[in-house]
Amino acid sequence: MRDVSIIGIGQTPAGEHWDRSLRHLAYDALAAAMRDAGVERADALYVGNMLSGEISGQAHLGALVADFAGLRGAEAVKVEAACASAAAAFRQAYIGVASGLQDIAIAVGVEKMTDDVGSKLTAGLASAADADYEVIHGISFVALNALIMQRYMHEYHVQREDFANFAINAHANGVGNPNARFREAISREAFLKSNMVATPIGLLDASPMADGAAAVVLCPTEQAREFTENAVRVAGSALAIDSLSVHDRRDPLWLQAAETSAQKAYRQAGVGPQDIDFFELHDAFTIMAALSLEASGFAGRGKGTWLARDGEITPQGKIPIATRGGLKARGHPVGATGLYQIVEAAQQLRGEAGDNQLANARLGMTQNIGGSGATIVTHIFERVH
Amino acid sequence: MRDVSIIGIGQTPAGEHWDRSLRHLAYDALAAAMRDAGVERADALYVGNMLSGEISGQAHLGALVADFAGLRGAEAVKVEAACASAAAAFRQAYIGVASGLQDIAIAVGVEKMTDDVGSKLTAGLASAADADYEVIHGISFVALNALIMQRYMHEYHVQREDFANFAINAHANGVGNPNARFREAISREAFLKSNMVATPIGLLDASPMADGAAAVVLCPTEQAREFTENAVRVAGSALAIDSLSVHDRRDPLWLQAAETSAQKAYRQAGVGPQDIDFFELHDAFTIMAALSLEASGFAGRGKGTWLARDGEITPQGKIPIATRGGLKARGHPVGATGLYQIVEAAQQLRGEAGDNQLANARLGMTQNIGGSGATIVTHIFERVH
Repeated sequence: MRDVSIIGIGQTPAGEHWDRSLRHLAYDALAAAMRDAGVERADALYVGNMLSGEISGQAHLGALVADFAGLRGAEAVKVEAACASAAAAFRQAYIGVASGLQDIAIAVGVEKMTDDVGSKLTAGLASAADADYEVIHGISFVALNALIMQRYMHEYHVQREDFANFAINAHANGVGNPNARFREAISREAFLKSNMVATPIGLLDASPMADGAAAVVLCPTEQAREFTENAVRVAGSALAIDSLSVHDRRDPLWLQAAETSAQKAYRQAGVGPQDIDFFELHDAFTIMAALSLEASGFAGRGKGTWLARDGEITPQGKIPIATRGGLKARGHPVGATGLYQIVEAAQQLRGEAGDNQLANARLGMTQNIGGSGATIVTHIFERVH
Repeated sequence: MRDVSIIGIGQTPAGEHWDRSLRHLAYDALAAAMRDAGVERADALYVGNMLSGEISGQAHLGALVADFAGLRGAEAVKVEAACASAAAAFRQAYIGVASGLQDIAIAVGVEKMTDDVGSKLTAGLASAADADYEVIHGISFVALNALIMQRYMHEYHVQREDFANFAINAHANGVGNPNARFREAISREAFLKSNMVATPIGLLDASPMADGAAAVVLCPTEQAREFTENAVRVAGSALAIDSLSVHDRRDPLWLQAAETSAQKAYRQAGVGPQDIDFFELHDAFTIMAALSLEASGFAGRGKGTWLARDGEITPQGKIPIATRGGLKARGHPVGATGLYQIVEAAQQLRGEAGDNQLANARLGMTQNIGGSGATIVTHIFERVH
């Protein structure tokens, strides 16, 4: 098995792209990543996407994107794992290069959500949950998360305002990210006054949908220096699953797949949570940020919000999260999000995070969640230059 | 890179399964394959599927199937490449085992089509083509194939009846397959009289849709003997793409991705078309059988129907195809078809093809086509016992 590194990154702004279709968005990110890496071809392309069939009437994105990007020589498929699709696609690219079968593999995540903001989108997002046992009761995906948050507040005696700092930190960091959908800081008052979407989830607990694409180019670490001086090594990679339904879990407040995938990634990298310099987590809702911190070993059970309260999640804290805005401020183009996280982690490790640059970041972790926790993909990246 | 073998196979009948949902169908095939292999766990599960989001409102099939099948310890994702989804999923399982990251990997293809036989299904199938440049003009997927067939007949001076033997052979072979949707032989007269679906494609040129699932278990060849005496070795594996749109191809009558993937698979296996004992090709429409034979090196350009005319595609011919009924008679549950082909090839090589058993089959080839030829996956399997 070969060691693997990221040699190129690219992304589009997350937002409303009325003039760019699926293929254009994917191409923009992919071409930027290829230029960044200085490669003109690839052996394989893995496209992360969730909703193209439902929203755009377009399946078959592997061929669509490879064809449009001039990569007819590459093999190409779409990988889908709900909102974890992009990190799952990244992992397949990682495995392809690690196997020795592919020397240059590209992972691109793309989502086009704003073409339909009505019933198709709500139904599409709900397809991440269990159609036969959850969605059939009429629950939307945000309502499912609201039930989890409600239970969390009851069980651990925390209040809605204890989640405020997750959103405040994300929006503060988003200001410095030119690709973020929302580049405005928010106040505690705004958070507390924000309209309820599904009680207790308010508008400012929830990440905004977006169109967007992000891409990386991978090659064997031993060849990385031929392409770039600032390769980022994949130190740990793991994907784990849990029950699709929340009600099937022994503990609905514990992301078992986050624990499993984080522990596997730590083991592969030979590190622990104390060694991680920053963590791009999946703050689709503030409750998910808390659960992710707990299951990944950064906070005790029921104490995820304490880290936020104590300021430990800010760029100056013990474990900075959402350093470029996270899902909350950068935006959450669902099937692309996992690669936005990975691109942002690479930016930090390459010293290219601009106003958001962390000092001396050497190890960064990303965690991408599909559904209410059914698929969780954790990666650890290492600065080697 | 490790050598890889199939140690277990399973399938459901292809047909109308009103009492089995997506998860049940996938489970039935997967559990049969695991029993056949004698394994109780897996490191990875790759689910091939095309339409679950559009037809069943259910994405996230990796977690759905792994969870339902008791494989929460495995990593699991869905792989999609239109009608080539299942062979693409198989290839990812192959790469996972070859890489050394996964010791036991399962690939399962599943499709549930009969829940919606109206507009959602037609629109879903059309999503294999280019939504922005083909489907927007109102063309359905069968009409797209009809244009190709029309052009073929014009260019190569063949008649509709020259395609008859593809359907006659498939149906004759389907009689012996208990899992085939149609187990009835058809006559030349019936073929010629069959109603037009999209001229010149008649009902008996076209494969029937179906519900169904098929699965295989893979492990490193050097460990295969611990599980079974009749492992089937993966001698060649390749996936290639072409333009998504037919009109973008230099020659709309040449499946470039079939040629590319077949040549790669031949090279890896160290063989040529003359060494292949039988060929499970993608006869979604009779025209695709002809094009597949030509691009894979079994017939000269424009001479695919000659092989059929001369009886060379029957079990007694030079290159038997659709030996268990093919897509035409076994049925075409789109995202599962590629794994039906692989299971059927393994049956032939294990000597378990019943009434359809070929004598002395040592090398079998499968070819799964996505869209009108945009993704083509070719595998070569070898009997080693």
